[in-house]
Amino acid sequence: KKIVILPGDGIGKEVTACGKKVLEQVAECFGHQFVFDYATIGHEAIEATGSPLPDTSLEKMKNCDAILFGAVGHPKYDNDPSAKVRPEQGLLKMRKELGLYANLRPIKLFDELLEASSIKPEILKGADILFFRELTGDVYFGERGRKDEGKTAYDTMIYSRYEVERIAHKAFKAALTRGKKVTSVDKANVLESSRLWREVVQDVARQYPDVEVEHMFVDAAAMKLIQNPRGFDVVVTGNLFGDILTDEASQIAGSMGMLASASIGDTVGLYEPIHGSAHDITGKGIANPLASILSAALLLDISFGLKEESEAVIKAVEKTLREGYRTRDIADANTAHEKILGTEVMG
Amino acid sequence: KKIVILPGDGIGKEVTACGKKVLEQVAECFGHQFVFDYATIGHEAIEATGSPLPDTSLEKMKNCDAILFGAVGHPKYDNDPSAKVRPEQGLLKMRKELGLYANLRPIKLFDELLEASSIKPEILKGADILFFRELTGDVYFGERGRKDEGKTAYDTMIYSRYEVERIAHKAFKAALTRGKKVTSVDKANVLESSRLWREVVQDVARQYPDVEVEHMFVDAAAMKLIQNPRGFDVVVTGNLFGDILTDEASQIAGSMGMLASASIGDTVGLYEPIHGSAHDITGKGIANPLASILSAALLLDISFGLKEESEAVIKAVEKTLREGYRTRDIADANTAHEKILGTEVMG
Ligand SMILES: CC(C)[C@H](C(=O)O)[C@@H](O)C(=O)O
Ligand SMILES: CC(C)[C@H](C(=O)O)[C@@H](O)C(=O)O
Repeated sequence: KKIVILPGDGIGKEVTACGKKVLEQVAECFGHQFVFDYATIGHEAIEATGSPLPDTSLEKMKNCDAILFGAVGHPKYDNDPSAKVRPEQGLLKMRKELGLYANLRPIKLFDELLEASSIKPEILKGADILFFRELTGDVYFGERGRKDEGKTAYDTMIYSRYEVERIAHKAFKAALTRGKKVTSVDKANVLESSRLWREVVQDVARQYPDVEVEHMFVDAAAMKLIQNPRGFDVVVTGNLFGDILTDEASQIAGSMGMLASASIGDTVGLYEPIHGSAHDITGKGIANPLASILSAALLLDISFGLKEESEAVIKAVEKTLREGYRTRDIADANTAHEKILGTEVMG
Repeated sequence: KKIVILPGDGIGKEVTACGKKVLEQVAECFGHQFVFDYATIGHEAIEATGSPLPDTSLEKMKNCDAILFGAVGHPKYDNDPSAKVRPEQGLLKMRKELGLYANLRPIKLFDELLEASSIKPEILKGADILFFRELTGDVYFGERGRKDEGKTAYDTMIYSRYEVERIAHKAFKAALTRGKKVTSVDKANVLESSRLWREVVQDVARQYPDVEVEHMFVDAAAMKLIQNPRGFDVVVTGNLFGDILTDEASQIAGSMGMLASASIGDTVGLYEPIHGSAHDITGKGIANPLASILSAALLLDISFGLKEESEAVIKAVEKTLREGYRTRDIADANTAHEKILGTEVMG
């Protein structure tokens, strides 16, 4: 099995190094053969080649069995809205070219971290949400530009039936194996693209009579996620709303540093933390590697069908937390100083 | 002074009735003369006239000194994405026609409600955020429609320099009287309209050297609002992101039922709860009237310059809470049964 490691920018390098170590360990313990290759993307790729996603990277990714990705981004571009070439363009192009239209973001709190969140433990206990964020459509890929001599700027939110259908089917199928409920999030009281979204989800829902379907406006969803996270099972939503709601939902899992995601489509699968490049802590060895390690677990399960191996990784994470080890983002006043670790221990 | 009461749909009627009572009380106690008139909007107006915002309503609003608004919306339209006439169209048309481009949403927790939120009290204590949500631009007002025989739907996110400038100035001016910090929220790593937004906010910020400015991506903001609400002072953002983030932020104030808002522009001001029409509890007399009452307080302060009167209303709300009275949304296990009230007591 060929795995491409795509570290990207900032802490992407440190955390994917940990994810890769775990994959190597799994190969050794379970007797598998994983071949690793590296590819570049983002700021690093721009510096080296001028392009945020060089063709050689894309070629490697098209010819492998799974991808472990870190993060892209750099403060340089964030502070310069007029930059023409940007790290994020590489990320978006990759998602589109690889057809990664479904981004699965499981939000589940490890019992050991019940106190790490800003939300009350009694509200969180038992929360278990699986987000399906559509990843290759919406305002991320619609036409954009300037007019009136640059004084007006626009982006196009756009969805077609088939794009909504395929992600909706994935969400309903997943719900059948879980709590049998799908919450579809849109803004159909204002947006035409959301009204299409809602129509299509209503149509798809009819094919899954055993699944309860609920439609929720994005503003209400942003509120209810915090007020009563246990009210959700599977959530399906567009690219932009999914971006916002899953970052928010990271607080349900204690920290953004805990959350893994899987991007899948018709061919290769890509696995990545939902956190970003975090340049403020880059190179210090203090980043939380668990999101990348849990991404590796998702890779084993979804792309390779290695359930036992995937479970073993999750168990190892649980054990580490139970033994009291913490990274800074999830440490609390009770964490012993010598148990505060980061990527440097594994790196 | 002429005040138009615009009850709208669902609990809008019950809560504005309470807001009006408070305004009448203020007039009596402080010796003012307020003249009230009524106008229709939303589902109710559609049923009566076919239009979600009849011209007669608009005329009344253009010729008064302030408006106290309830809410619009009806499940009938939510479940029917193909409905051509919708209550929300009345709301959006009203905002546009009255030039209400700045929606102020103060998020502040009454000490008495420290335990009512799903967020930990130690995270909330002292949080005090003032949102400036742009209200007459963005994807709410851009061109929208269908193509490919209805199989594709689009909306246009669009901003022009002057729209961003005027709301940014309002935010920076307000920051000078508060914590001297503005957080501008956008998605400039992806959206062109956000890059324009960021450019303009950077330009405006230069004119306020005493105010610290911070730019944050909307996904990060959705997370940080819950993780550390005290990190925010004034927040300025576009129409869509503002819609989502302020609903989310309602959890900081314990309940959506507590939050008032002021929509201002160049002429008349409009005051409304940030909650919706809530048809599930309509007519039961259990809705929380405080958001409407606090909207009346904002009206007295901002449109009429009656600071003392406004303060008196807020003090009365505090006293009521201190005496243990609660509506269902903010009641907890310690609330005595006979102290659980709703709009019916005031109505
Ligand atoms: C970096 C950015 C373009 C990206 C997104 O918005 O999709 C990120 O926030 C994510 O969620 O993967
Ligand atoms: C009812 C709806 C159109 C409205 C909006 O999205 O602006 C509401 O959510 C609000 O925040 O006032």
